[in-house]
Amino acid sequence: MSVTLRQHKLQVYNTLSRSKEHFKPLNSPHIGMYVCGPTVYGDAHLGHARPAVTFDLVFRYLAHLGFKVRYVRNITDVGHLENDADEGEDKIARKARLEKLEPMEVVHHYTVRYHRNMDQLNVLRPSIEPHASGHVIEQIEMISTLLRKGYAYEVNGSVYFDVERYNGKHHYGVLSGRKVEDLVSNTRELAGQSEKRSSLDFALWKKAEPSHIMRWPSPWSDGFPGWHMECSAMGCKYLGDQFDIHGGGMDLLFPHHEAEIAQSTIANGKAPVRYWMHNNMITINGQKMGKSLGNAMSLDDIFTGTHPLLEKAYSPMTIRFFILMAHYRSTLDFSNEALQAAEKGLRKLLAAADTLKQLTPSEDAVIQGIENILQDCYTAMDDDFNSPMVIANLFEAVRIINSAKDGSLRLNAQELKLMQQLFEDFVSGILGIIPEGAAGDDKLVDGLMQTIIELRQEARQRKDYATSDKIRDNLASLNIEIKDGREGTSWQVK
Amino acid sequence: MSVTLRQHKLQVYNTLSRSKEHFKPLNSPHIGMYVCGPTVYGDAHLGHARPAVTFDLVFRYLAHLGFKVRYVRNITDVGHLENDADEGEDKIARKARLEKLEPMEVVHHYTVRYHRNMDQLNVLRPSIEPHASGHVIEQIEMISTLLRKGYAYEVNGSVYFDVERYNGKHHYGVLSGRKVEDLVSNTRELAGQSEKRSSLDFALWKKAEPSHIMRWPSPWSDGFPGWHMECSAMGCKYLGDQFDIHGGGMDLLFPHHEAEIAQSTIANGKAPVRYWMHNNMITINGQKMGKSLGNAMSLDDIFTGTHPLLEKAYSPMTIRFFILMAHYRSTLDFSNEALQAAEKGLRKLLAAADTLKQLTPSEDAVIQGIENILQDCYTAMDDDFNSPMVIANLFEAVRIINSAKDGSLRLNAQELKLMQQLFEDFVSGILGIIPEGAAGDDKLVDGLMQTIIELRQEARQRKDYATSDKIRDNLASLNIEIKDGREGTSWQVK
Repeated sequence: MSVTLRQHKLQVYNTLSRSKEHFKPLNSPHIGMYVCGPTVYGDAHLGHARPAVTFDLVFRYLAHLGFKVRYVRNITDVGHLENDADEGEDKIARKARLEKLEPMEVVHHYTVRYHRNMDQLNVLRPSIEPHASGHVIEQIEMISTLLRKGYAYEVNGSVYFDVERYNGKHHYGVLSGRKVEDLVSNTRELAGQSEKRSSLDFALWKKAEPSHIMRWPSPWSDGFPGWHMECSAMGCKYLGDQFDIHGGGMDLLFPHHEAEIAQSTIANGKAPVRYWMHNNMITINGQKMGKSLGNAMSLDDIFTGTHPLLEKAYSPMTIRFFILMAHYRSTLDFSNEALQAAEKGLRKLLAAADTLKQLTPSEDAVIQGIENILQDCYTAMDDDFNSPMVIANLFEAVRIINSAKDGSLRLNAQELKLMQQLFEDFVSGILGIIPEGAAGDDKLVDGLMQTIIELRQEARQRKDYATSDKIRDNLASLNIEIKDGREGTSWQVK
Repeated sequence: MSVTLRQHKLQVYNTLSRSKEHFKPLNSPHIGMYVCGPTVYGDAHLGHARPAVTFDLVFRYLAHLGFKVRYVRNITDVGHLENDADEGEDKIARKARLEKLEPMEVVHHYTVRYHRNMDQLNVLRPSIEPHASGHVIEQIEMISTLLRKGYAYEVNGSVYFDVERYNGKHHYGVLSGRKVEDLVSNTRELAGQSEKRSSLDFALWKKAEPSHIMRWPSPWSDGFPGWHMECSAMGCKYLGDQFDIHGGGMDLLFPHHEAEIAQSTIANGKAPVRYWMHNNMITINGQKMGKSLGNAMSLDDIFTGTHPLLEKAYSPMTIRFFILMAHYRSTLDFSNEALQAAEKGLRKLLAAADTLKQLTPSEDAVIQGIENILQDCYTAMDDDFNSPMVIANLFEAVRIINSAKDGSLRLNAQELKLMQQLFEDFVSGILGIIPEGAAGDDKLVDGLMQTIIELRQEARQRKDYATSDKIRDNLASLNIEIKDGREGTSWQVK
């Protein structure tokens, strides 16, 4: 394969080493990236938006550099729905299939809604989006390997991973920095703690209770895979025994990712992942998000402004910009003030992108250093995907564009071209910031505005200020602001 | 469950009986419906649009009647991609996973594009969209049952269904009307014809050649399920051993659906489906569609007008309307003339829907028989989903709306309400016909048009015809037509 890679000095913070490391792919120009996706038993919320936007940024930048990225983001759909226990097993068994709750119907409903939300946030679809329920065979095979190698044991139809045995030769805690001896029992178990030899052991396969709906046959029981298995099995299937990047939220670091490392290391004889990347959490007005705190809000709540904590609706692009305004490893506090600041910044940036299209080069321009700004954006991205630093540089560009517009400075043809490249590559390409509703009737609105601006111009020429004022007021009621500048009249949606 | 079902006399043409039958669900108010979905190794074309729109119509009408429909439409993703044979097995084995072709990456790419096309056509998402590759366990279980019951046999790691044995007790050909003795070998076999006892036997499981990429372990070999298995296994899993409706294109009737009946009848002890529904085929300028004929065009080709056979682009809603203008059991011939006629009809219908919003009731109105039109639409739908008859009735309503607009007739409040209900239930609800780009900036465009129309009015009042003509010309260049009528000036996108 002939691929031209852009020169880069990409440093990635690796949770394994707790330091930034020079990024070196295993099979350049190919890159394998796996990110833990959503559990689709409810609507997507901010906690889904942050990893999606974060690893979208990573995906876009790596692709921009010229890498061929295979980006796998799973759908966790092996759920724990139960048939109504009050009805008794017999009655449930007699019921027609259609009358019973079907988990895959719930899963499909929320998967479609998740995709719609991600499209609204301009998050690119990953290369493969495997469902856990669609890879039970691969999970059973991996569990069989772990049993064969002696690192798992079966009890009453369930299979558990033997953490103590693993920790004898390897380090359980290599990712989280925990020590087995210090660890208490806080693994997310599904049931039957008492079956385990040690509280640290985790389930690879669980025998299903009679009321449990989702179940598959296995050599051990009719049951379902433990939660950690799916990512190990699907990562290995689509990216190989060892791949470049594994991402997810910091809340998944332990025990989920620690367990993934242990399982895969035994099954495949090597550590599965080179660079572990974790995005930090979102707080709401300084508090943790949670249903019990009354501050859990879905993305749809935010996009429509229907949650009581919200002063107004915030658009998907505002949320995307808000997330990118913080470095992915920093906590991010969600508040009306912060959102409104992000909204203002986004408008300024997009207005400058519009202005840029109308600028003309000037021969007697003084060099403004656009090349440095472009270079600084690369430097920021190379520094562990530092999007806030990119945005700071872009606002330096916004200042220059606005000065060029009001005539206080000029750009020569070469710098104007560099500025256009900066906006194309970094604003829409890498940050993925595009005008809201860009796919819509933009051309029609542009055309109508052109006509209205001409009519206003004519009214002013014949000194019919009643009409020109009325036009301005009508537009203001549609949230459209018109401005008369040196290069004619421009407009923008406020 | 408490559900109010609307009175109906729904007759469904059942391919099994070759006649229209009164529709009686097995578990009313629940209905189970399975439709064969796309093979996602290429872009969707007209042959995908017709069944999708046809069964979307069925889904929408059944839901409108008050039924709880579980609509399953599968994704066929078990493909037959092979690794490059020139490279030799050893070399392929040494290659990193990431450097190899990954069928699921191809599958995901085309699945996302298929969904986008279906959204454009306003086809509702089904309740569950299972992937064949995600249900290999279920398929292996069903094959094991068929082997255990003696209706299947294994040869060299592959398993075949024994059609002759089946035909001894049952009728292989019950759906297609074929007789086993007359049948020649035209089943879609994958390889190894010679392994079969009879040319009519079909593969349930195939052992994978070394170069075959998609493969799973099974009791017989590392291989993959035969094509007919997936629909039987997934239909049964999500809808039960016997369900109401199975749909698909007529090209799937034999051998695919015939094989489904045979497999499921043996595995579950009963015929799987009550009503088999098949949509007819689309021809292009009177010819069969096919790559070798140079007339295969994707939906994207049609939506953008890029295929040489197209005089212009046709919008998704035009294609939807065009499909609904024919009864689903009639052949449908695709031509520029027919498409342009559909486009014209669609515009007329949508313009009337807009006009309807502006109509006001009149006290001295003569009864226009709107109730009969509404009733005739139900009668048409009850007659095996006769959409062209519904459309004919809607055009009678369009005539009345346009007469009400130009003042040549009036509607009283009750009839105006019925007319609104007719459009809501049948145009947007059941036929799924909505304005193009309805999700976009409609409010903004409406507001801008309001301002422009006022400015034009003022120009005319001051006899400034140069300005009013210019406005009309500017709008015409944006494909907007303005019309001055009794109730003021209206506009529409042409």
